[in-house]
Amino acid sequence: MSFSPNIARLQPSATIAVSTLARTLKAEGRDIIDLSAGEPDFPTPDWIAQAGIDAIREGRTRYTPAPGIPELRAAVASSSLRQAAPGWSLDGGSVVVSNGAKQALFNACFSLFGVSDEIIVGTPYWTSYPEIVWLTGADTVFVAGDEARDFRLTPDDLERVRTPRTRGLILCSPSNPSGVVYSLEELSAIASWAKSHNITVISDEIYRRIYFGGADGDQAPGLLQLDPGVLGRWVVIDGVSKAYAMTGWRIGYSISPADVAGQISALQSQTTSNPSAPAQYAALAALSDPARTDVAVRTMVSAFRRRRNLVVEGFRSMLPHLPVLDPMGAFYLFIRIDGETGPETPNSAAWCSRVLEETGVALVPGVAFGDDRFARLSYATSDDLLEEAIRRLAARSA
Amino acid sequence: MSFSPNIARLQPSATIAVSTLARTLKAEGRDIIDLSAGEPDFPTPDWIAQAGIDAIREGRTRYTPAPGIPELRAAVASSSLRQAAPGWSLDGGSVVVSNGAKQALFNACFSLFGVSDEIIVGTPYWTSYPEIVWLTGADTVFVAGDEARDFRLTPDDLERVRTPRTRGLILCSPSNPSGVVYSLEELSAIASWAKSHNITVISDEIYRRIYFGGADGDQAPGLLQLDPGVLGRWVVIDGVSKAYAMTGWRIGYSISPADVAGQISALQSQTTSNPSAPAQYAALAALSDPARTDVAVRTMVSAFRRRRNLVVEGFRSMLPHLPVLDPMGAFYLFIRIDGETGPETPNSAAWCSRVLEETGVALVPGVAFGDDRFARLSYATSDDLLEEAIRRLAARSA
Repeated sequence: MSFSPNIARLQPSATIAVSTLARTLKAEGRDIIDLSAGEPDFPTPDWIAQAGIDAIREGRTRYTPAPGIPELRAAVASSSLRQAAPGWSLDGGSVVVSNGAKQALFNACFSLFGVSDEIIVGTPYWTSYPEIVWLTGADTVFVAGDEARDFRLTPDDLERVRTPRTRGLILCSPSNPSGVVYSLEELSAIASWAKSHNITVISDEIYRRIYFGGADGDQAPGLLQLDPGVLGRWVVIDGVSKAYAMTGWRIGYSISPADVAGQISALQSQTTSNPSAPAQYAALAALSDPARTDVAVRTMVSAFRRRRNLVVEGFRSMLPHLPVLDPMGAFYLFIRIDGETGPETPNSAAWCSRVLEETGVALVPGVAFGDDRFARLSYATSDDLLEEAIRRLAARSA
Repeated sequence: MSFSPNIARLQPSATIAVSTLARTLKAEGRDIIDLSAGEPDFPTPDWIAQAGIDAIREGRTRYTPAPGIPELRAAVASSSLRQAAPGWSLDGGSVVVSNGAKQALFNACFSLFGVSDEIIVGTPYWTSYPEIVWLTGADTVFVAGDEARDFRLTPDDLERVRTPRTRGLILCSPSNPSGVVYSLEELSAIASWAKSHNITVISDEIYRRIYFGGADGDQAPGLLQLDPGVLGRWVVIDGVSKAYAMTGWRIGYSISPADVAGQISALQSQTTSNPSAPAQYAALAALSDPARTDVAVRTMVSAFRRRRNLVVEGFRSMLPHLPVLDPMGAFYLFIRIDGETGPETPNSAAWCSRVLEETGVALVPGVAFGDDRFARLSYATSDDLLEEAIRRLAARSA
């Protein structure tokens, strides 16, 4: 008995080999420094966690409306409007709350794209983008921007791969895995290009609050900071996971025109219904007290910035044969390894396994993000561990 | 700009008209008795809720493995084995924990069924079955069992609609909306038929612990009580929502052969990742202390049984022109209304709207479950409200 063609293109995760090896070595008593995680190492701020506890205590553990409690949908809209360009009007009807930003992205893609569509995904990409596109039945078209621009895409790059079948573009800024951030002007140019060709822009802004291009707490440029007239059809993907250290609660959301939100909500009502009710109330606490939340975000971003500088400077001074991109957001360092492996067959998975065995440092191979010449280091861990990891990597190369 | 063909067959919920009217009337100050809910009216038992609180307090709010924490997957397997026939061996590798049983069902169907497949769904059906089948690209084939058997399907009924394209069958026992329960012999006959034709059986057993065919706390017959040799490919859908009054937490699961579980897990890892972590720990508490849980279940089932008798007897004595099926599980009464509306065009939605306007009693029209001659009453509410609802309905008919 076979499986459905719906999942025929589903790939086993490219990171499994390394994470399995890390677990094995750890079980053998090896001292492993795990820099593969995609989540903040901070606990959820106290008063946000307390709101989840209060919800449980008060019995707010029943079904909620499928797209989320109205208060949370409204709070997401308000929170987005605070940073938006003039001319935007949004309310809860534009918001669907999901089991993490991943579900928000799946819902949007599944509702908008299908068989015979082509969806453009920039390389390097977050590992789930092509998988989600394939699950919709559409084809993924990969394109890498100029390396001199840290792979940021321009309308010229996009125009090169556009066909009559192109229906969507998935952007990620700040980028997982590269930490690269698009400027408002760059986003605007891409949005105009997309509008003129009836291409839907899905903008994954989950790392938007972890940004080093301004003061701690400033947000990276996002679609809603563009003049609304610049945009054709658009969906913003966001959530509380990264900004408020709430990964396991699983609260993400899409923001979109109301007709798109209506379809996403209908889809979610038939596939999962509402995300966990206590988690929704915790997210509501995070979004409805911006003054308090901003303090927590600034504290975390300040730590991420310090660690970012630590790893960037560490690599540049002690590991110059492994050049790194200059991350302007998120908490990842994207490390070019093909100077060491040789440029022909870099095989980032083999390189990461070797490094793990030799040093105990776990990184994610770039092949998981569509570029086998790189490896990704997450610096969402303590300064001490980061310094020790760099020492071990440098000792190995010495 | 259009939407994806993936969602072309997605239907707006047939219950929306009535629930919107109920909200409107309530807002106008009308005294509404809402018997449309699909969830227990009990709070989540204290110690289960406390386990969720403890998880939050202790910072267990990070990502978990996509198919759920290993302890919970193992607890589901153990819990299922306690009731299983001899010959079964199950471990956590057969279990995927999802954002509610609805996601477990979607995952199973999306992984197993696709374009050009036909999936048999018995009428009356839970409203999401055909929607989920359509989302996989497959076609739904409806079949009703003999009304003299309360619509329970037999191999003869199934054989009547089988074609070379038939790939799956979705069963629901105890049934939402009818409360009907299949015997072990009936399940066995259907399983053998399915095996002999390579048809996958998906058995939705979410109401299995709410059963009136034995002592309070006895479970309705389920697939795992069959001899394993009787079954071909199978998936059991279950969860903590109905049995432990945990609907809003959103923890459901699939139990299946390990190869199917592997595909379901891979799909979930790309569409939503893990369900909410604190909710998983609450579910773990419910499943890992069966002695304590069984007491809570018995208390709830005892109340449901009393209310069941109350509404069945109430309808039979005071509303004899509205015959009801004899529910043996779940917490629904399925009421035949076409004696009142006329058999030609029963229009259950119009009837429910009229009843709601005239009496303030909110029911769900049978059209939502594929049979327009019925309406569904949920008796998951207090005896007082149920008595008052019957009084109002009787007064209307007098």
